Amino acid sequence: MSITVVGSIAYDAVKTPFGERERMLGGAAVHFALAAAFFDEVRVVGPVGDDFGEEELGAMRDRGIDISDIERVAGKTFFWRGEYGWDLNSRETLDTQLGVFEGFQPKLSDTSRSSDVLFLANIQPDLQHEVRAQLPDARFVALDSMNLWIEIARDSLVGAIEGVDCLILNDAELRQLTGKPNLVSAAREILSWRDGNGGRGPSVIVAKQGEYGAALVTRESFFALPAYPLETVIDPTGAGDTFAGGFVGFIAANLDALDSPSASGERAGGGDRATGAPSDDLLRRAMAHATVLASFNVEQFGTERVQSLTREEIVARLHELHAITQFSGVA
Amino acid sequence: MSITVVGSIAYDAVKTPFGERERMLGGAAVHFALAAAFFDEVRVVGPVGDDFGEEELGAMRDRGIDISDIERVAGKTFFWRGEYGWDLNSRETLDTQLGVFEGFQPKLSDTSRSSDVLFLANIQPDLQHEVRAQLPDARFVALDSMNLWIEIARDSLVGAIEGVDCLILNDAELRQLTGKPNLVSAAREILSWRDGNGGRGPSVIVAKQGEYGAALVTRESFFALPAYPLETVIDPTGAGDTFAGGFVGFIAANLDALDSPSASGERAGGGDRATGAPSDDLLRRAMAHATVLASFNVEQFGTERVQSLTREEIVARLHELHAITQFSGVA
Repeated sequence: MSITVVGSIAYDAVKTPFGERERMLGGAAVHFALAAAFFDEVRVVGPVGDDFGEEELGAMRDRGIDISDIERVAGKTFFWRGEYGWDLNSRETLDTQLGVFEGFQPKLSDTSRSSDVLFLANIQPDLQHEVRAQLPDARFVALDSMNLWIEIARDSLVGAIEGVDCLILNDAELRQLTGKPNLVSAAREILSWRDGNGGRGPSVIVAKQGEYGAALVTRESFFALPAYPLETVIDPTGAGDTFAGGFVGFIAANLDALDSPSASGERAGGGDRATGAPSDDLLRRAMAHATVLASFNVEQFGTERVQSLTREEIVARLHELHAITQFSGVA
Repeated sequence: MSITVVGSIAYDAVKTPFGERERMLGGAAVHFALAAAFFDEVRVVGPVGDDFGEEELGAMRDRGIDISDIERVAGKTFFWRGEYGWDLNSRETLDTQLGVFEGFQPKLSDTSRSSDVLFLANIQPDLQHEVRAQLPDARFVALDSMNLWIEIARDSLVGAIEGVDCLILNDAELRQLTGKPNLVSAAREILSWRDGNGGRGPSVIVAKQGEYGAALVTRESFFALPAYPLETVIDPTGAGDTFAGGFVGFIAANLDALDSPSASGERAGGGDRATGAPSDDLLRRAMAHATVLASFNVEQFGTERVQSLTREEIVARLHELHAITQFSGVA
């Protein structure tokens, strides 16, 4: 399969207790694409200014990412400056310059429109809705958003969410969106939207929980994974989008592996033969890959660590993640 | 084996978004004992006032808890009043009346001193130190504390911690105690205290993470478990002590099961034959039991749910907890 991602391409200035960078490659679509490219073909849609460098484009090209729908526009590339607190759990935005992102109207080529999998990174929800409409036959569509849109454009956001298969949000955002006090009740609320909406809407909810890991809620299943434990975290910027890249990327690469149920009744990976939706087993494995990708992302500034990452390192850490979540004594 | 717990026995007044109770049985030692009693013999040491009811004593006696070291003192039983915010993640203490707890000097009978396992619930750290000295031959000693003692009696607390095998704290308290920005670095810091202390000090660190679950750190291993997912949480009061009761209780019940290493080199439960310390496998299973006990505690006010809990319910939820943490695709 192939994946189209629509979202920001940016320069970030970041200061953490462990150092700083004045101008580094960033943006949700970039972090997503660099992670997802380990698993499948990725096409990036988004605008850059005339200040955007060849080196940054090269970083994506080196990973086989299709950058032909990255549109160069007169003006400045989206710029974000932020600073993190001592434990990296709080951050302050010091500057946001939308630049060419301000007038962004996504233009998708026929190639980008032909992808089977779509990730709508955090942009204005009406734009997410428009893009989603350009890929009516996509088999799996996931969406991320942020507190700002819940506050100022909730109806638009709900409309956009009702058009996708999978919602990926921070757990605080899930509570804020639904007014429900905990993860399970918030996720169940969103899953119930399908009933009033002719069966359209998310069947998969992913709650990102930062240093605590992530949880997955569907109608049939609940799954939770801790974050991979790191003694030193350098920069959390882009961790959520890298997580989404690992998650959606792994699903895209394995959705066609329609395995039949095993003797024990469990489905071993791939998509559900009847609905074409990802099986519970595939979703869980995707969560594990997402967790591993995100853990690498935070080990260095911005995209630095994921740019140097190898497949072997991913596999090794996947085994470690498995080992730290196992317990015995239960048949 | 048997377990001695020293800590508060209290009346709590609690208000949550889901209801309130004006005067219910509470206190760290009580929550701990009611959970641990599912696994082993528990002896409670602590003071109550002359207002403490026979019914409350009966609730402990009904679970086979040895209450002969509960000392009745002239005055009022420890009283705490608190109110929780909408998502139960914040709480405000509205009233604390120490009552007979103010002059508490733990008096342990020979029976309580003969226990092999000791839990020092959150009390003034010098008292924890004194109690610990009265069980010099205990095989496994765990300690809980709180932010107050880190702030006003840090040296005493560090002294108390250096005398135990296992430290159980909230993750924010671990950071506060060590000044380290994340769980792994904070836990490693405390584990390193043994080196400067003749090998005395905690070899097991448990970080309670509330709705996110809990993590276990030793020199050799890391393990993390999500909380059991609940759609409705009624009252988190006592969840941490109930968690500790499940954890320490399960270890006490299984520490003597000194299994030899399996063919694969893994130890299957019980204590380490060489050191007598709990094996990694036993610690992980204890974390799972702790997680399950804590999940029941928060389903009703105070001790109500754990008082009505059955062994069958614990086993059933243990299987569910196992199911929600498993993923495949990793050899």
